[in-house]
Amino acid sequence: MVKKFIIAIDLGGTNLKCALLNSSLKIKAKSSFSTKSFDNKRKLIGGIVDSINSFILRQNLTKRSILGIGIGLPGLVDTFKGMVHFLPNIPGWKEVSLKKILEQETGLPVFIDNDVKLMTFAEHKAGSAKEYNNVLCITLGTGVGGGLIIGNSLYRGKDNAAGEIGHLPLNEHGPVCGCGSEACLEVYVGNARIIKDARKLFGSKITLEEVSKLAQGNNAKATKFWGEVGKKLGLALSGVVNLLNLDAIVIGGGVSCAGKVLFKSVKQTILMRAMNVQAKRVNIFKAKLGNDAGIIGAGYLVKERLKR
Amino acid sequence: MVKKFIIAIDLGGTNLKCALLNSSLKIKAKSSFSTKSFDNKRKLIGGIVDSINSFILRQNLTKRSILGIGIGLPGLVDTFKGMVHFLPNIPGWKEVSLKKILEQETGLPVFIDNDVKLMTFAEHKAGSAKEYNNVLCITLGTGVGGGLIIGNSLYRGKDNAAGEIGHLPLNEHGPVCGCGSEACLEVYVGNARIIKDARKLFGSKITLEEVSKLAQGNNAKATKFWGEVGKKLGLALSGVVNLLNLDAIVIGGGVSCAGKVLFKSVKQTILMRAMNVQAKRVNIFKAKLGNDAGIIGAGYLVKERLKR
Repeated sequence: MVKKFIIAIDLGGTNLKCALLNSSLKIKAKSSFSTKSFDNKRKLIGGIVDSINSFILRQNLTKRSILGIGIGLPGLVDTFKGMVHFLPNIPGWKEVSLKKILEQETGLPVFIDNDVKLMTFAEHKAGSAKEYNNVLCITLGTGVGGGLIIGNSLYRGKDNAAGEIGHLPLNEHGPVCGCGSEACLEVYVGNARIIKDARKLFGSKITLEEVSKLAQGNNAKATKFWGEVGKKLGLALSGVVNLLNLDAIVIGGGVSCAGKVLFKSVKQTILMRAMNVQAKRVNIFKAKLGNDAGIIGAGYLVKERLKR
Repeated sequence: MVKKFIIAIDLGGTNLKCALLNSSLKIKAKSSFSTKSFDNKRKLIGGIVDSINSFILRQNLTKRSILGIGIGLPGLVDTFKGMVHFLPNIPGWKEVSLKKILEQETGLPVFIDNDVKLMTFAEHKAGSAKEYNNVLCITLGTGVGGGLIIGNSLYRGKDNAAGEIGHLPLNEHGPVCGCGSEACLEVYVGNARIIKDARKLFGSKITLEEVSKLAQGNNAKATKFWGEVGKKLGLALSGVVNLLNLDAIVIGGGVSCAGKVLFKSVKQTILMRAMNVQAKRVNIFKAKLGNDAGIIGAGYLVKERLKR
């Protein structure tokens, strides 16, 4: 029997991660490139094709042993048409028929989707949200993204644009947000804001990882700092919990490593601010699959689409 | 062929509405009682049974011609077990096996559900949201309630408690809310608050209906008043639209009669505050079925459950 593999790709604003998965979606090999060297769309697509081909070569595979290629992208994607509408952080990507282009270049079936949707898919299939039906996955980083599982399936909304928890307003008025609105959750708990707050408190050279370590060592200022981040996050989540009566929330991304103090503050805020029944129902978990979630989600995407 | 009918009941904090529907869910007869005369749970259940029996008698029907009884209730209901968990505005209702009690008393199949869920169900089946897949229905009154259609089905959440748009926080801090939190949408656009604001502006005797009429006649103060209500409502809806990428929002309840100025303000706010793709996608409608939505939804509930 010929062994079957999936090539999974996670395209971020900074890195292009590439992995070879076996048919059980275990990672067999990995590679990563900076996307900066590919300074336009054509070069970046070329880079994706090269990394697919070099994987096949280096692992001594044939194209016949590859089930398909799954790709996560940081932006608005029509997963069924295989079209990238736009990528806010990668210039030049507007209305790109990526599936068609890559299928022509590689001769393999290609499936694409939004990266946070794939992370959500992975956490629901194989991570922290495995046994839950109605789930919000949230990623805390430069941006604050989210994905939803509703009735045991990935919920996309009409344009595959659902899940934007980062753009829930936390106040009627407040700091301007990149999305064009103001006072969105992202402007309060996105990395740009919290690193600024941290540097005011701890000096201009501290990193968020260091503030996390301080909190894990019970440093009072760091504990208070993450407690405040947790309150803002918990308040936005209270609204979502009231609206969706979720059974689980999964928190991932760099900031989720702040640890217990952040999660405790989120939980306490939900208990204080959300309605009784909904607050008691929801479980709050740290994401389990970490940096591999996008890759594993891309693998599930390929498996799911090929089943149809 | 024996004609088949459904008895539909909408139990509110003020009135018990009862209707006879034919099998196409057209209303053939209606009655309404004040719930105040039934000052305890036992009497109210007796009142429900009496109104069912008197309907059957007055309309010259036999029990064999009744397909079933559908009931909407203003609170937390386990629709599948037929259990009322609690009704916040009707004292004494805690963990009542209403389905079982009424089936024993009437000998007919009984189905119960939350009233806003039934209104949502009705607007999706036969009202403004008929052709839409992902919908929020919102009712503006003393309370601000909501229901969700997700992927063409009524979305209940884990405890049938989903849809509580009235308890989305609009600010981190603000006026105390009946739910135990603060700064919820309901404290800004619920009737209690807006009648107070209206009386400050227009004098102590004005009603909200009168402020609506003034706005319809282009009175500048009234136009501004409903514009402000629309801004607050629109902001909360912007968050939901970003999160759920809905294709329609249906607004019902007394305040929805304020007319164009309210809807215009809601739409403008969503276009300003929600993300581009989601804001352009969503349609905003006035509820079509008005006061009958709960009754018609109760009819659909009976039909749907009997099909299983």
